[in-house]
Amino acid sequence: MQSSRSLGKVFARTQITGLNQPWLQKLQLAVRYNSTATSADQAAAMEQINTTERLTRLRELMKQQKLDVYIVPSEDSHASEYIAPCDGRREFISGFSGSAGCAVITHELAALATDGRYFNQAAKQLDGNWLLLKQGLQDVPTWQEWSAEQSEGGKLVSVDPTVISAPDARKLSEKIKKKGGQELVAVEDNLVDIVWGNDRPAKPSEPIKILAPQFAGKDLKKKLEDLRKELDKKKSSGFIVSMLDEIAWLFNMRGNDIPYNPVFFSYAAITPTTATLYVNSAKLSSECKTYLTDNGVSMRPYHKIFEDSEVLCKSLDTPDNEPEAKIKKFLVSTKTSWALKRALGGETKVEEVRSPIGDAKAVKNDTELEGMRACHVRDGAALTEYFAWLEDQLIVQNVQLDEVTAADKLEAIRSKQKHFVGLSFDTISSTGANAAVIHYKPERGNCSIIDPKAIYLCDSGAQYLDGTTDTTRTLHFGEPSAFEKKAYTLVLKGNIALDVAVFPKGTSGFALDTLARQFLWEEGLDYRHGTGHGVGSYLNVHEGPIGIGTRIQYSEVPLSPGNVISNEPGYYEDGNFGIRIENIIMVKEVETNQKFGDKPYLGFEHVTMTPYCRKLIDESLLTRKEKHWLNEYHADIHAKTKDYFEPGSLAIKWLERETEPL
Amino acid sequence: MQSSRSLGKVFARTQITGLNQPWLQKLQLAVRYNSTATSADQAAAMEQINTTERLTRLRELMKQQKLDVYIVPSEDSHASEYIAPCDGRREFISGFSGSAGCAVITHELAALATDGRYFNQAAKQLDGNWLLLKQGLQDVPTWQEWSAEQSEGGKLVSVDPTVISAPDARKLSEKIKKKGGQELVAVEDNLVDIVWGNDRPAKPSEPIKILAPQFAGKDLKKKLEDLRKELDKKKSSGFIVSMLDEIAWLFNMRGNDIPYNPVFFSYAAITPTTATLYVNSAKLSSECKTYLTDNGVSMRPYHKIFEDSEVLCKSLDTPDNEPEAKIKKFLVSTKTSWALKRALGGETKVEEVRSPIGDAKAVKNDTELEGMRACHVRDGAALTEYFAWLEDQLIVQNVQLDEVTAADKLEAIRSKQKHFVGLSFDTISSTGANAAVIHYKPERGNCSIIDPKAIYLCDSGAQYLDGTTDTTRTLHFGEPSAFEKKAYTLVLKGNIALDVAVFPKGTSGFALDTLARQFLWEEGLDYRHGTGHGVGSYLNVHEGPIGIGTRIQYSEVPLSPGNVISNEPGYYEDGNFGIRIENIIMVKEVETNQKFGDKPYLGFEHVTMTPYCRKLIDESLLTRKEKHWLNEYHADIHAKTKDYFEPGSLAIKWLERETEPL
Repeated sequence: MQSSRSLGKVFARTQITGLNQPWLQKLQLAVRYNSTATSADQAAAMEQINTTERLTRLRELMKQQKLDVYIVPSEDSHASEYIAPCDGRREFISGFSGSAGCAVITHELAALATDGRYFNQAAKQLDGNWLLLKQGLQDVPTWQEWSAEQSEGGKLVSVDPTVISAPDARKLSEKIKKKGGQELVAVEDNLVDIVWGNDRPAKPSEPIKILAPQFAGKDLKKKLEDLRKELDKKKSSGFIVSMLDEIAWLFNMRGNDIPYNPVFFSYAAITPTTATLYVNSAKLSSECKTYLTDNGVSMRPYHKIFEDSEVLCKSLDTPDNEPEAKIKKFLVSTKTSWALKRALGGETKVEEVRSPIGDAKAVKNDTELEGMRACHVRDGAALTEYFAWLEDQLIVQNVQLDEVTAADKLEAIRSKQKHFVGLSFDTISSTGANAAVIHYKPERGNCSIIDPKAIYLCDSGAQYLDGTTDTTRTLHFGEPSAFEKKAYTLVLKGNIALDVAVFPKGTSGFALDTLARQFLWEEGLDYRHGTGHGVGSYLNVHEGPIGIGTRIQYSEVPLSPGNVISNEPGYYEDGNFGIRIENIIMVKEVETNQKFGDKPYLGFEHVTMTPYCRKLIDESLLTRKEKHWLNEYHADIHAKTKDYFEPGSLAIKWLERETEPL
Repeated sequence: MQSSRSLGKVFARTQITGLNQPWLQKLQLAVRYNSTATSADQAAAMEQINTTERLTRLRELMKQQKLDVYIVPSEDSHASEYIAPCDGRREFISGFSGSAGCAVITHELAALATDGRYFNQAAKQLDGNWLLLKQGLQDVPTWQEWSAEQSEGGKLVSVDPTVISAPDARKLSEKIKKKGGQELVAVEDNLVDIVWGNDRPAKPSEPIKILAPQFAGKDLKKKLEDLRKELDKKKSSGFIVSMLDEIAWLFNMRGNDIPYNPVFFSYAAITPTTATLYVNSAKLSSECKTYLTDNGVSMRPYHKIFEDSEVLCKSLDTPDNEPEAKIKKFLVSTKTSWALKRALGGETKVEEVRSPIGDAKAVKNDTELEGMRACHVRDGAALTEYFAWLEDQLIVQNVQLDEVTAADKLEAIRSKQKHFVGLSFDTISSTGANAAVIHYKPERGNCSIIDPKAIYLCDSGAQYLDGTTDTTRTLHFGEPSAFEKKAYTLVLKGNIALDVAVFPKGTSGFALDTLARQFLWEEGLDYRHGTGHGVGSYLNVHEGPIGIGTRIQYSEVPLSPGNVISNEPGYYEDGNFGIRIENIIMVKEVETNQKFGDKPYLGFEHVTMTPYCRKLIDESLLTRKEKHWLNEYHADIHAKTKDYFEPGSLAIKWLERETEPL
């Protein structure tokens, strides 16, 4: 499933009139320039929520506290991309349910900013109270710029400091001050929560489980030892961990507090001599408690992190005779909340770094790599069984199936697989024009019937004890048009070009992104999302710090052997069809004829085990090398998954047909 | 000619012993790992200067002023890459004559940092007083890190503030303070100049000429008008211009103060109502003075910029009733010297930006583009005449020719061309192993005889009134080895892949770099320099802000129609041979079958008109598309340059043979 923010154009709600601000003129210009943006509205209907009442109550609270602008980010207190329902404040206030975005509310206006994946969905879900800021496009203000513009004339901009990262808050505050606003205000109680009131879902409290060594591959003691070495190298006093997947990885524990993400609400503080896990004790079985104690880990209630932080950092106070530069600061990740950084004492006590746990987690150990291979074989077999069933239902049995019913069948098939825990994200099961909605989520009872004569895009994955899967295949059960075949084949060529890339150690995913896009570009086509995201090992399906795409952060982190990442170019035609082809690939050292300067050269190993769609391939566009690669890949898929099926079954017949050499 | 800083390994001078610092252990480790670094020492000898006496006198001056560390950057007061002899302080003190590097001197040690182009040269030129810090490689400290390490324990690090940019000084100062050193000290009088004394060359004072409208394409009035619009958009009080090529471009004037760079020492201050050129009056003819006056430009002596800056910025002082955020600051480029920024009043008065003149200059107007095409045809004809002559001399006449004598002949041929002004940089005329020294400069009387049985690499260019050229061709006059052909062809494939690239508006040179390297990477090869640099229009052969390569700055500036840039992948085998193929390419809008989101798609037009070397091409490695492209390119070269030669001449025969279809 792709994850990158990207390009787009502004879509203004015409309901808002009588405003003469320059940015609005810009918005209106952009609308004219981008009239096709609404054409995808014909894709499956999405519910629109009337937000008038909610906004009115929020604005009353803002007035009481003398706030002019209130910002509602998407994230929870742990900078999670996916959140528990109780943290869905931005969705509650705006009605937009996509995974990424930010709402900014003033007394007169309300704006929702989101990225290219969600332009169509947001346009559908936002009611007339909202402006949509399509992020990434020329002349469209970012939500930070928009907030700063609203602050002109000394106005007060505010946010709940637990749901914005410290660097984001700092940058925003600078922008606001430049525009003549005042310092960004941290508002202790979340105002949206107050509006939400009793309707707000409860904070989840699911039990936590220990991940067995056969799946983790490296025990807690060793992970702590390595982390402490890293902290010592960085001359720091310790590391305060706030990202949930980093805690789950470090402690070899998994939870179930956020749908699809096997994490649990917690913080951790690691010093050279102590390790403390902040988690509500109700979630811990006695087995968990013993395990933690045996590994030298103390337990404290979740919320105590704020109190303890103050104490921890007091310990750093410099004796009078020591130069300030000698203070060993605490490290926090750049994702740590503004609230936690404040509790720790701010700049003088804390240094923001790219998380050393994030870096370590991204380099999978041999056990994790082996697990990733194994779970993708099982997952590939499940997908083959599903696609064979779906084709039979649609074409032979002539059954009418809607997108969710089909996705349910896929989940049922997957759930029979060994080590299955659950899905790794909402299945994107999309027919025809819906496939052009990049993060389409079919809604039960309100989604489209799968059209056997249109393209069908399926982006899905699962959590297994031994790994996390994420595969997209785009199929056609009837006769694709010449242009659909061309677009599919150009996407496929990009997918292959990235798969076979060889590059020296030190190369980042930023530098490789062009390889996946070059064939589309030649035709004047492109896709508005990243090409690849890191994938966790029985953890979040999106994880940093690596990625393949045009986000500048990706240029800062070279790919390393052991990285697991997606390879998912696509092409989307609003209101018509969408194509995405996604494999999971793992970085490995490769043999080359030469070795320049003794530098290791790296390449990829693909672990996804589901055939491409033969019908959609225009063979005339493939080189001999590409055909050869494809035939070898299909032969490998056949060999590794064939034993999962009964002789003569629909699945084996489908697999054999789809993996036959070109 | 390529320009990028890049990767390498440290080479420690074994003469220095008895030191136990951790960084030295690192250096020594790196030496063992990189024993091949010295193998290129067999390339042409370069003079080594005994720096003991100079360093002793410098250290005495440092002692007098109580300075512990003194930094000597390469640049002059205008951040020029190439400098006048009087500004060659880093070369004087270290003996290293390459164009890029930085010297750092403590009372015990002296370190010279340089990049991959110069590792071999620096290793040869530095005497036993110096450590070489190979910049860009893992575990090798940058010169900033090294300086900071020397500052530990509260030591004083210092620099002449006129030869370091304000951002570089700021970042360095922060690094030093982190290590426990004191604030970076600005030393008014340049200490190296004092050591240099009467031997220091005089400041040049060459006459300035006006560039005729037929070459400039846009007059001074219009350029000032556009700049003022830009300044108004940025809400600034004015722009202080310090880069010499920006001043030459803005005023449509050219000088001759720096070898190969048609610029003149000057500053300029542009406000909404005034334009002042700070230049010594002796350089200005009465014609120039009238021209400036007619265009509303005042003239002031060069050094008065510092005095005037103080006055200018006093005018920004805020009235008590105005909020500070409303001050319209002055803009300076991020390359502006620390000294000038201090004179302007520092942070509160000045904002550092990427220069709006640099951005405007990089987008050539139609006259400049036409000039660039035209001068490259003449320059291509000159190169063809030269290569034909050289081959005849070496192979038919059996004449012994050294590298400089050959380069002299090339200059003689070029100088006959219409609009010729001079060379655009020192010709790199290099035989065999010398070709592996990326920025090799053959020295008269002390260079190699061209070996007709080895590879010959020629990187050269000229200044014409209508444009600047820069071409590299690698030839073989005998029988190349299979590996030389393979390497050449892989470099050629990269050169072609970049030339034919199609990409959406918004794409940077960072994103395209991989296209040029991919074929070398597949073989386990690479080159330690950038792929492309911006080229001036009868201006500096290297100019920003665009570039193609892995420098992160290149990711910040998208390529735009009108950009002129080099395309120069290479491959170098220390002590054996070197290959580089360089064309100049211009960004243009291209037609594509589709247009995604109405975005313009861009591509390149090549203007270089010199054939590749047929003998070095391994046809079996080329695709049909590549062969077709090459044949078309060669046919174009033939058509455009053939009329420059007499029928039956050596040149026409060579041209016909080399441009025949594959």
